[in-house]
Amino acid sequence: MLETVRWITAEGKVLAGCEEGVQLHPGKLRIIDQTRLPQELVYLELDDIDGIVAAIKRLSVRGAPAIGCAAALGLAACAQHLSEKDFLPNIGKLADQLAASRPTAVNLFWALDRCRNKENMEELIQEALAILEEDIQMCQAIGRHGAPLIEEGMGLLTHCNAGALATGDFGTALSPMYVAHEAGRKFTVYSDETRPLNQGSRLTAWELHQSGIDVVTICDNMAAQVMKEGKIDLIIVGSDRIAANGDAANKIGTYGLAVLAKHHGIPFYVAAPTSTIDASLEQGDLIPIEIRDAAEVGAAEGVRVYNPAFDVTPNELIAGIITENGLHRSPYAFG
Amino acid sequence: MLETVRWITAEGKVLAGCEEGVQLHPGKLRIIDQTRLPQELVYLELDDIDGIVAAIKRLSVRGAPAIGCAAALGLAACAQHLSEKDFLPNIGKLADQLAASRPTAVNLFWALDRCRNKENMEELIQEALAILEEDIQMCQAIGRHGAPLIEEGMGLLTHCNAGALATGDFGTALSPMYVAHEAGRKFTVYSDETRPLNQGSRLTAWELHQSGIDVVTICDNMAAQVMKEGKIDLIIVGSDRIAANGDAANKIGTYGLAVLAKHHGIPFYVAAPTSTIDASLEQGDLIPIEIRDAAEVGAAEGVRVYNPAFDVTPNELIAGIITENGLHRSPYAFG
Repeated sequence: MLETVRWITAEGKVLAGCEEGVQLHPGKLRIIDQTRLPQELVYLELDDIDGIVAAIKRLSVRGAPAIGCAAALGLAACAQHLSEKDFLPNIGKLADQLAASRPTAVNLFWALDRCRNKENMEELIQEALAILEEDIQMCQAIGRHGAPLIEEGMGLLTHCNAGALATGDFGTALSPMYVAHEAGRKFTVYSDETRPLNQGSRLTAWELHQSGIDVVTICDNMAAQVMKEGKIDLIIVGSDRIAANGDAANKIGTYGLAVLAKHHGIPFYVAAPTSTIDASLEQGDLIPIEIRDAAEVGAAEGVRVYNPAFDVTPNELIAGIITENGLHRSPYAFG
Repeated sequence: MLETVRWITAEGKVLAGCEEGVQLHPGKLRIIDQTRLPQELVYLELDDIDGIVAAIKRLSVRGAPAIGCAAALGLAACAQHLSEKDFLPNIGKLADQLAASRPTAVNLFWALDRCRNKENMEELIQEALAILEEDIQMCQAIGRHGAPLIEEGMGLLTHCNAGALATGDFGTALSPMYVAHEAGRKFTVYSDETRPLNQGSRLTAWELHQSGIDVVTICDNMAAQVMKEGKIDLIIVGSDRIAANGDAANKIGTYGLAVLAKHHGIPFYVAAPTSTIDASLEQGDLIPIEIRDAAEVGAAEGVRVYNPAFDVTPNELIAGIITENGLHRSPYAFG
C-alpha cells in the first residue's frame, strides 16, 4: 500500500513525503525516476541543484502538484548543504535555477515563490513541508469526497495519470480509488494506455497494481467497446485547468471519453484541487490547447502529425467535479 | 501514384499486381514486407513455398483480400518451378501448406480452393490472375461508388488500413480517396494510429503519402478533438464482416469513432466488398469478437490486459455501406 511519511528525525531519516511521490531526506530529494517506469523502479537521490533541475526537465518527476512539491523539497535539500552565512546570498539563485526547469509550470513558480524569501533554513524547511502537507491534505480530502461514488464490484475507467506519481500523496482522480480500496471495497480499474506518452499504461496501471488494486490496461481506442460490454460503471479523470462554468481541460482523449460515457449512460467525474480552477476564464473554449512535438507520435517519414496534448470537456458532459472542498454538481459556478 | 500492372510477358516481366500490393513475376511472388514499414520499404521476392508460408504467417502480407491474392499468386509462382509431370502430384500439397499459414483466414481458403483443382500450370495461372483481377475490379468499383462523397477541401478520417496494402489494388476504405485524388480533388486524410499494432500510422499514412495524398497521423484518442475542431467532414472505414442488417465488424476503435461521429454530426461510411457480408448473421452481436494476445499491448509487469481486436458498429450509426455494387443506405437488408 501507498504510505505517506510525515515525521522529521535528526538521525538521517525521511523528513516527509509519499512512498511513490516525492520525499525529502536530510540533504537530499528522493524521487522515483518516472521515465524508467514500469520497466525499472529506480529512486533518484539528488543532493545538488543541477541534478534536481535535470530531473524535472527530463520528466523524471511530473504532474503539476508533484513538480511543486519536488521544487520546494528540492530547494530545502540543497539549502541543507549551505552554511548559515551562505544561506541568504544563495537561496534566491537556487530558486531561480529551479524555476527555469519547466517554464510553463504554474505550480513550480507558486511553490518556489513561497520558499524563496525565507530568512533561514529552518523556515525554508517548514514552508516546504507545509506545501507538501497541504498537497497531502488536498489529495486525501478529494479521496474522501470521491470514494462514496465507488461501490463494491464496480468497473472504473481512468485516463492518463492523476495519481500518487503526479502529486505529493494519493493523487486526484486516483485518490478516491485508494480510499475505497483502503475501506476494503473490491473493484476493477480500466486504465487507458494514453497515447502518445503512455502515462496510463506506464504510470497509472503500475501504481494501482503496486497498491493491490485490480487494474486492466487497454488501448485508448478500446474504451468504447469496454463501455458497450457493460464493464464500466464510473469514470474519474483529473484536470489541468477548469473554467468558471466547469468546462475542464485534461490530457488529450478525455473529451472523447466523456462523449462515449454520455452515449453509454455512464457517469463521468473530474477530480482536481480548487487551485486548478481558473475563475478568470468564463468557459473552456478560452483555455489554450498546447500542440506538442510531432516526434512524440511515431509517424512515417514525411507524414504530418497533429499532436494536441489536451482537450476540453464541456460541463454538460461532467456529472460532478470532486475538489478538496466536496463534490460539486452542475450547474458549476466557480467564478 | 499507385499503379496496377495487368500484363503478362514471356520476357521475365511482371505478370500482374499492384505496386503496393501483391505482384506475380515469372516464378516468384513479390510483396512488400509490411512488418518493416514505414521504416524500410523492402520487397520480398519469394520463389518457394516455405518462404511464402512464412511471409503470410509473420504478417508481411496482411488484409483479407491481399492474403487471398498472395496465396493464389504464390501458388502459381511455386507451380512455375514444377515440370509438367510434377504439376498434378504436387499442386494439392502446395495448396495445403499455404492454407495452413493463417488458420482463420476465409479469403485464403476460398482463393486456394479455386486454384487447387486446376489441371495444369496455365489454368492455374489464369485462375490466380482471375482472382486478382476480380479483386482489382472490386476495389475500383468501390472507389467509383465512394469517390463522389469526397469533395474539394474536405477533411477525412480513417482507421486501421483498408488500402492498397490490404488488397490486390487500391483497397476498400481508401479506394474512394485514390479515385478522388486521381480526379484532381484536394483533401486531407486524418489517419488514426490504430493501437496496438499501428496499422494506421505504419501502413495507411505511408501508402497515402506515397501516392501524394495529404495525410496527417493522429493518436486514436485525438479523433474526438479533431472532430470538435471541425477538421473532419467524412469518415470512411473498412470492415471484416457485415451482418444482414448492416451492423459492421471492424478493427477495434471503429465503434467508438462512429459514436463520436454521431455526436459531431459527421457522416460515417463503411467500404467493403459484398464478400464481407455474412447474410447468415441477422445482426452484429452474433459476430464473435477475437480477443488477442496481451503481449501486443505493452503493459506494466503483472498488470492485466484486455485486447479485443475488433468491435461491431451498429447499423444506425452507419450513413452508408459502399460495396462494389454501389452505395447502400439504411435500412440495410443484405439477407
